[in-house]
Amino acid sequence: MINIAVLGYGTIGSGVVEVLKTNSDSITKRAGDSIEVKYVLDLREFPEDPIMDKIVHDINIILDDPEVLIVCEHMGGVEPAYTFVKSALLKGKSVVTSNKELVAKHGAELLDLAKEKGLNFLFEASVGGGIPIIRPLNQSLTADEIMEITGILNGTTNYILSKMSEEGVDFDTALSEAQRLGYAERNPAADVEGHDACRKIAILSSLAFGMQVDFEDIYTEGITKVSDVDIRYAKALNARIKLFASSIREGEQVYAMVAPVMIRANHPLYSVNNVFNGIFVKGNVIGDVMFYGSGAGKLPTASAVVADVVDAAKHLEKNIWTIWSSKKLELTNVNHIQHRFFIRVKDDAKIKEQVANLFGSVEEVKVDGITGEYAFLTSDITEQDLNENKKKLSDVLSVIRVRF
Amino acid sequence: MINIAVLGYGTIGSGVVEVLKTNSDSITKRAGDSIEVKYVLDLREFPEDPIMDKIVHDINIILDDPEVLIVCEHMGGVEPAYTFVKSALLKGKSVVTSNKELVAKHGAELLDLAKEKGLNFLFEASVGGGIPIIRPLNQSLTADEIMEITGILNGTTNYILSKMSEEGVDFDTALSEAQRLGYAERNPAADVEGHDACRKIAILSSLAFGMQVDFEDIYTEGITKVSDVDIRYAKALNARIKLFASSIREGEQVYAMVAPVMIRANHPLYSVNNVFNGIFVKGNVIGDVMFYGSGAGKLPTASAVVADVVDAAKHLEKNIWTIWSSKKLELTNVNHIQHRFFIRVKDDAKIKEQVANLFGSVEEVKVDGITGEYAFLTSDITEQDLNENKKKLSDVLSVIRVRF
Repeated sequence: MINIAVLGYGTIGSGVVEVLKTNSDSITKRAGDSIEVKYVLDLREFPEDPIMDKIVHDINIILDDPEVLIVCEHMGGVEPAYTFVKSALLKGKSVVTSNKELVAKHGAELLDLAKEKGLNFLFEASVGGGIPIIRPLNQSLTADEIMEITGILNGTTNYILSKMSEEGVDFDTALSEAQRLGYAERNPAADVEGHDACRKIAILSSLAFGMQVDFEDIYTEGITKVSDVDIRYAKALNARIKLFASSIREGEQVYAMVAPVMIRANHPLYSVNNVFNGIFVKGNVIGDVMFYGSGAGKLPTASAVVADVVDAAKHLEKNIWTIWSSKKLELTNVNHIQHRFFIRVKDDAKIKEQVANLFGSVEEVKVDGITGEYAFLTSDITEQDLNENKKKLSDVLSVIRVRF
Repeated sequence: MINIAVLGYGTIGSGVVEVLKTNSDSITKRAGDSIEVKYVLDLREFPEDPIMDKIVHDINIILDDPEVLIVCEHMGGVEPAYTFVKSALLKGKSVVTSNKELVAKHGAELLDLAKEKGLNFLFEASVGGGIPIIRPLNQSLTADEIMEITGILNGTTNYILSKMSEEGVDFDTALSEAQRLGYAERNPAADVEGHDACRKIAILSSLAFGMQVDFEDIYTEGITKVSDVDIRYAKALNARIKLFASSIREGEQVYAMVAPVMIRANHPLYSVNNVFNGIFVKGNVIGDVMFYGSGAGKLPTASAVVADVVDAAKHLEKNIWTIWSSKKLELTNVNHIQHRFFIRVKDDAKIKEQVANLFGSVEEVKVDGITGEYAFLTSDITEQDLNENKKKLSDVLSVIRVRF
């Protein structure tokens, strides 16, 4: 029997307890031993819950119990999660976490500490919910140099954009519906401003390139400026707008960005709709691969946590090697990146002439029933040129990056 | 330095040598040591090739060299691959293979032998080319009971069906084009009759359910009977025809089947076109996940082989646990499975009445310009009922299973 402790009995923590119970037989078989939840740390009491007797309020009960071999952290946020996780490792316990803020901020350090102690620090559930992506990056794509990772990593924003596209509603209506269904928080900023996707692509980029990618360095733009009118133009272009979190290597340079992007059906992530996540990886020998599944939700995320627990149980005294150096990877300034852009400006007598002067030859986009504006696709230009040109245009209505 | 030997210097074997050279630095970093090809076994000589000095024709040179720690087998077919691989394990060498015939036939036994010897027998490249699927099944989906695995596992047939769908050409024309491009063999039977997909789903099913699924037990139907007329009907139904290799669990029963199936855009495998492969997995807690990528090809397949070599190098004296018992899993007779079916019959005065008598209420399907036949979709019926009803109909033109 292997005793574990669960920190935080919210959605994911309770999911972990549920999955361990539901699939107890097959998990025991795969882990080589039964997994038993000995403690659940939470500030609250759960008097009606089967785990009520396991609830503790003091982390030291867990840290000081040598029978606890694995700690699962699902409290979210950097503190006190960081202090608790670090203490657990120092006390000789392996740690599994679903906490993307913690991993993005302290992943390299906690991996080092785990390695030093002959333990494991595993975090499959921190990116892409149930989708296996951390382990494939660490263990399956080891023959490749990773050239690109692009993910739809946030289910809330993908749901909102899908809803806007399918039903023609505006951003606020789609957001309200997402909140009503429990897909979006009351305060949706972390999702809709792109911060959640930013932390996740920081984690994936660090693993792909083996060095520390600081999430604060990643250019991040959310979806709050995407309007229902933009979506109508996207449809006219046979395109969809998705919130992409990307990390792309060109020679020795790596740039990373979170931003809405227009894509067409030939992109592998085009069919990733609603709350689903998809992660596209390009390797220099494997070519294109894509992983798809539920990017959030109680049970899918708990499935990833429990798979990590099984792995930790199978490697109680052996560190599973992960290459993520604390040495910082300096990202290329996004100003140098080239894209095509979709741009809408207010129409006036001289607009076409002005656009042609600034952008050269562009492709006009028209949608029946939309008047008073001029919309076009540029050729490949740098972010810097875009920004300079934008300043010279009066009344820019929207700018969206284009990948076709 | 870790010395390896490559058995078979064809497409994949030479790809392995190339990938090891191309990504030498990052592979060394990830394996923890450099990987050196000491021998290449082939019947031929390669006088112009950089590996010419490493060519040997006698397996015993490799088996008897204690410096060779890992053997990569890419000869294909059951013999002599089986004898060579078994001998290598007995001599204390880990084995990596891309050989689906070998793995489908002797996987359980070779895994047992590797475990007994504290070695590894790894075969990521035997299914889905470069797509990571074996390792995710073994190590990432360990918290789940697998309820379904459905794959588009054969790139040749997927290319042919995509071509027929995109260009309206018939089977023979699409096959010729596939042969011209090197996607299909001169003798295409193993692909177009479904045998290749059958072996691959046998391997995935054995891993998913932890017991031996014999490929000979899997109902297998190829794509040779799929006509351009069927494809026109599929289009009228907003559907595509794909060769599905499926293994589905219902309670304690598992059935497996390889057959062409009509699917619509809401199926995760709908967008898997041309030579790409996709593998859809449903778990009881993770829900739906999907893996997508190049299912064949020199470098993608070699990428999977080399990732296994890296894993073997990291676990030189520790067996990576894989649950695949040699105990046979008795598959449910496909007669009991229910599907909807798409059926075309020659039209005659009484056909609608006869169909209604046999199948009850059906959904007629019409395509402009196709006359002299009557096409319809049944409701859910068993394979057995389908077969019995089919005998009573004269002039059945085609029958295709439907998943919508």
